[in-house]
Order: sequence, then structure tokens, then C-alpha cells
Amino acid sequence: MGSNESERSVVGWAARDSSGVLSPYTYTLRNTGPEDVFIKVLCCGICHTDLHQVKNELGMSNYPMVPGHEVVGEVVEVGSDVTNYRAGDIVGVGVLVGCCRTCRPCQTDIEQYCNKKIWSYNDTYTDGKPTQGGFAENMIVDQKFLVKIPEGMPAEQAAPLLCAGVTVYSPLSHFGLKQSGLRGGILGLGGVGHMGVIIAKAMGHHVTVISSSDKKRVEALEHIGADQYLVSSDTTRMQEAADSLDYIIDTVPVAHPLEPYLSLLKLDGKLILMGVISTPLQFVTPMLMLGRKIITGSFIGSIKETNEMLEFCKEKGLTSMIEVVKMDYVNTAFERLEKNDVRYRFVVDVAGSTLDQ
Amino acid sequence: MGSNESERSVVGWAARDSSGVLSPYTYTLRNTGPEDVFIKVLCCGICHTDLHQVKNELGMSNYPMVPGHEVVGEVVEVGSDVTNYRAGDIVGVGVLVGCCRTCRPCQTDIEQYCNKKIWSYNDTYTDGKPTQGGFAENMIVDQKFLVKIPEGMPAEQAAPLLCAGVTVYSPLSHFGLKQSGLRGGILGLGGVGHMGVIIAKAMGHHVTVISSSDKKRVEALEHIGADQYLVSSDTTRMQEAADSLDYIIDTVPVAHPLEPYLSLLKLDGKLILMGVISTPLQFVTPMLMLGRKIITGSFIGSIKETNEMLEFCKEKGLTSMIEVVKMDYVNTAFERLEKNDVRYRFVVDVAGSTLDQ
Repeated sequence: MGSNESERSVVGWAARDSSGVLSPYTYTLRNTGPEDVFIKVLCCGICHTDLHQVKNELGMSNYPMVPGHEVVGEVVEVGSDVTNYRAGDIVGVGVLVGCCRTCRPCQTDIEQYCNKKIWSYNDTYTDGKPTQGGFAENMIVDQKFLVKIPEGMPAEQAAPLLCAGVTVYSPLSHFGLKQSGLRGGILGLGGVGHMGVIIAKAMGHHVTVISSSDKKRVEALEHIGADQYLVSSDTTRMQEAADSLDYIIDTVPVAHPLEPYLSLLKLDGKLILMGVISTPLQFVTPMLMLGRKIITGSFIGSIKETNEMLEFCKEKGLTSMIEVVKMDYVNTAFERLEKNDVRYRFVVDVAGSTLDQ
Repeated sequence: MGSNESERSVVGWAARDSSGVLSPYTYTLRNTGPEDVFIKVLCCGICHTDLHQVKNELGMSNYPMVPGHEVVGEVVEVGSDVTNYRAGDIVGVGVLVGCCRTCRPCQTDIEQYCNKKIWSYNDTYTDGKPTQGGFAENMIVDQKFLVKIPEGMPAEQAAPLLCAGVTVYSPLSHFGLKQSGLRGGILGLGGVGHMGVIIAKAMGHHVTVISSSDKKRVEALEHIGADQYLVSSDTTRMQEAADSLDYIIDTVPVAHPLEPYLSLLKLDGKLILMGVISTPLQFVTPMLMLGRKIITGSFIGSIKETNEMLEFCKEKGLTSMIEVVKMDYVNTAFERLEKNDVRYRFVVDVAGSTLDQ
């Protein structure tokens, strides 16, 4: 199929200001260029970053803003140079829709670290138009930034994998932590944390959930499948667990002390930070030096890793715990997410919602 | 040779209290056990840690304390089970003289990370006696904790390699940073920093010295051989150098901001901390996450790495800048070290000094 002659009008749900309240918004999508794929959105996960963005909590929001970067859709039309996708394919779109293609990260397939990356929403595309996300009828996306959803994987299960899933998979893969038998810690049991437990368990790890309270103990151990549950204020148990973990995935999105968790790490253990926290975190150097421990962070994952991770989840038959809602519930969902009142990811059934009212 | 029948009396220079002033002190060394090597000390470097220890700045000093852990000596007598050393050999002793031999670090030849390691001084040996360091006529050391000084390497050149040298060599080796062509930064040009420049240059790296002032520019570039010199307060040059370094060896021993240096690192760059700093250091998570950067630390090096490093230095013909002094100058040397007034390492000519007055 070729390019569409005129821009398409599309309805999404947009925030208009930092109140973050979403409501119907009509805008246009660019013509289908040679490398573009035009998709009908089926569903879209709600990530904590969406909450930050709609409320301008990172200080760089532009409105109107249609959020959503865990998008599963069906291909409707493809550009003349698109060979890997055709109408009817089920595809995913994550956090990015563009990159420079020439820098070292782009050349080595880790385009998420390109300094000129283009975000799925709240950014400006190469044509000068604002990018808009997946809480909308349709998206148009460069084929490079699409992934194939494996056959048989339900769309609403695939959605949270496109950000939360690859966000935990990528550092485990990059830092050599995929082999079975490792002992991992997951700090914070939200959307990313619960996905961390599921993926690490599927890799054959012994997984300890570390939380500030006892509230999620039963869920963590009985429903999500963690092996152990540690309350960070329980100094006796924390001391017993000292020097026992190969890595900790730290999903806590607010300032917190690092030393209790560095203590849990073995020699050469890795503390992998995933929360965007503008308040400085602290540590004292002997905690790192005397165990050659590492503090690092990781940012989503590449398209290549996303494909790998989707295949891994398919092969292992992984399912995550989600709550599917319609678009008219999205503002309530954001409010509940803010209070951490979700087990564990909201997914909006976009195709099954009425968007224009 | 067999064990000596009685304990030997030996003279060293000890601190008696937290004034840190050293003066002659007579004590005994254990008999030469089957695994022991009795050495005559030739020379001993002065490390910044010695200063901390004699003044009880780490809060765990025991007196009288004979410091010194960059020891080069000549073998006088060996125990019955010692096969690798014989009288007349020139050997080195570093920071450690004991370990448990059964834990994972010990089993994998990184005994510096053993939780039961025994320090060369200010520690207790397996026989219950205090360990005493290299500012003394003699030492008695388990053969496992000796290294061979390569033939032809002057003793006073070898001494600083045994702590400062291996302290920079070990992380470069462990973190995969030995190959030529890398771009490294050395933060702080003291004893360890100047050794960092020399070793990194010998590995074929492009080396930038980063300092708080312009004072050492000429020395760094013209005498030590660095390629570039950056003053950390020069924001224009610091910005120009952003995203350019594969690693930084951070030798600063007091609290300092990390973000200016994290900014200099490339994607996957490593900030390797070497200073024991009890005041917390700070960073914000996006600085790590958006470049998958690593903050880590490293503690001296193993005996295996020390041997490797000595051979490397021999092969490359490396020499460091040292100031050789006699024992009666040691208190002045400590004062000057405290004011950072040394280019770049003091080495005490122990064998050439009168110790008992």
C-alpha cells in the first residue's frame, strides 16, 4: 500500500493542563510515509511515568498531551518500504518512536540511549508535529519502532511488557544476570516490580521481594510467586539476608536510603535503579569498595531486547496481573495509581471504549 | 630452613596514640612457621591510609601501631613448607597478610574481599598477636601474601606499586578496561592518581587528569604524561568534555559532588571510587539511568593481580615519581602528606635508616 493522500483526523484522550485530567481530543496524524505503519490501537497500559507527564511533574510537559506508551495495535496500512508488517498484524509500540540512526547507541541497537531519541508522546516528531501516545484510536509509527506481538499472546497481556517488562528484562540481560540460579531482589512491588518478580522467576532466579510494609506479603509469595519477602524496617531479617543477593532491581520512585539494600548484595552485586528520582540518593564509598558493588541504572530497553523479551514471555507462558478498564475510567485509574491502589497494572481497552465522549 | 626456636625482637617505628607521631618501638615477631617467610625490610611507601590509621581517623586504631603496607624486603629465612621463595629473593608485602582461604572470594583468588582478611598492621594475627607493618627492620609473612619483585626493578620503585599501583590496576582489569584506545579520567593527582595516569597511559589509554585547580597542569601533562587536563570548576571545558570518557578513577578522599564527573562519562561509563569517605556522596538517578552509567568502588587488588601488575610495570618499564626519605624524616613526611605536599609518593629507605634512635 502507498501513502495516504491526506492527514487523518483521530480522537484520543488528552490532558490539557497540569491537573492531568484526560478528556477527548481530536488531532491529526501525518500521512503514511514509506517507512510508516498506521495502526488501530487495541489497548494501552498505564505507566507511572504517564502520571508524572500528564501532571507536569517532570517540568517538561506540553499540552494537549495524549499519553500512553504501552500500546498494542493492529496494522491497518503500511508504507511502500515496509516489508516486515502487513495489515492485520498485531504489533506493539513502546516508549520511543524515533532516533538519529547514526550515533554509537543507534548503530549498536541500543537506540534507547540515543541523545536524539523521540518519545512516543510529549515530544516533537521529525515533521515538527507533536507526538501523541496510545490513548487514541490510531497511531502512525515508523516500522523501526514496532515490535511483533507473538501469536497467541493476548493484547492486554502484551501491553505492560512493552515498557514495564522490557525495563526489567534489559538490565538483567545487559548485566549478565539472565542465567538460572541467581538470587535477586525486587525493591518495591508496583507495576515494574511485579513484572520483575515474574520475569526473574521465569529465568530461574530465587526472588526476594523487599518492601516497606508487610501489606503485600501474601500476594508476593502466593500470587506472584516470589520466594521470600523482606520488610526493610525489620533489621533482624535484613541482617540475616546480608550479603545474599546477586542483584536488586530498585523500582522505588521516591528518595530512599540505599545502604540497607547495598548491604543485601554479595560481592560484585548490582543495585539497578529504575525510578526517576530528582532528589539525590546517598551512599558512603566503603559500602561499594569493600564488596566491589555496583550502583547503576537502566532505561527501558531496545527494540531488539523488546522482541527478545516478548519471545521469552511467550515461551515461558508468562502472564502478569492486570486490571483492564475502559477509557472513561482512565482518570479514576490515574487517581488510584497515584495511591498505589492497583494490582499491578491498569490496561485501557482502547478499541472497546467509546473515545469521542 | 626450619622454624626459629625463639621469638625475634625487632625495632620498628610506631605511633603510640592518635597524635600519630612515630618513634622507635621494640616488639617481637612470631617464630618462622612452616608457611612463613622472614624478611629484612628494604623500603616502605607511605600511603594516605597510614595517615588515617596513625591518627585514628577511621576510629579503629590500636596502639602501639607500626604502619606501612607497601613493603619491599629481602628474604632471610623461610619455613619448611615454603617452596617458592628462598633467602636473597626480593619480595613485596601489601595491605593484607591473612584470609580465611575457604570463602568464595578466597577460593576465586580475590582474597582482598574475604570478610576475615587480616591487615598488615592494626589487626590481630591468627596467633593472637597484633600485626605490625613495614616501618620496621623485619616482618614475618605467610608465603601466600608475598609477591616476587621482578628482577631489575628497584625496590623503591616497586614499593608504591604494592598498594597504589594495584589499587588502580585491579579495577581496570576487573571491569574490562585494559584494552588500548579507551579514554580514561583520573580525578585527583595524589599518590594513587599519579599511578593511575602512568598505568593507564601504559595500557594505551587517552588520559585526562581532572583536578580542582590548575596547579598541577604542567606536571600532569609534561612530567607524568597525561593527554589532557581539566579543571573541574571550568564549566565550559567540562561541558565540552561531556560524554567522552569510558571510565574515571576517582581518588578524591573527601566528600565531593559526583554529577560533574558522571556527566563526563560516555554511555556505559564507569565511575570507580577509591577514596574511603564516610560522608555520604550523592547523585540523582537519571544521571545513571539515561546512560546506563555505573558507580562502583574497588579495594586494592589480589596477590594474583599484584603479580600481574608488577610484570606489566616491568615489561613497560614504568617508573613512578617518588621522594625517598630516611626513617627520621617520617613524621615530617606525614605532615607534608597531610598538606598534599609530595610529588607523588614518599618511600622510606628503611634498610638505610637507623631505626633504634
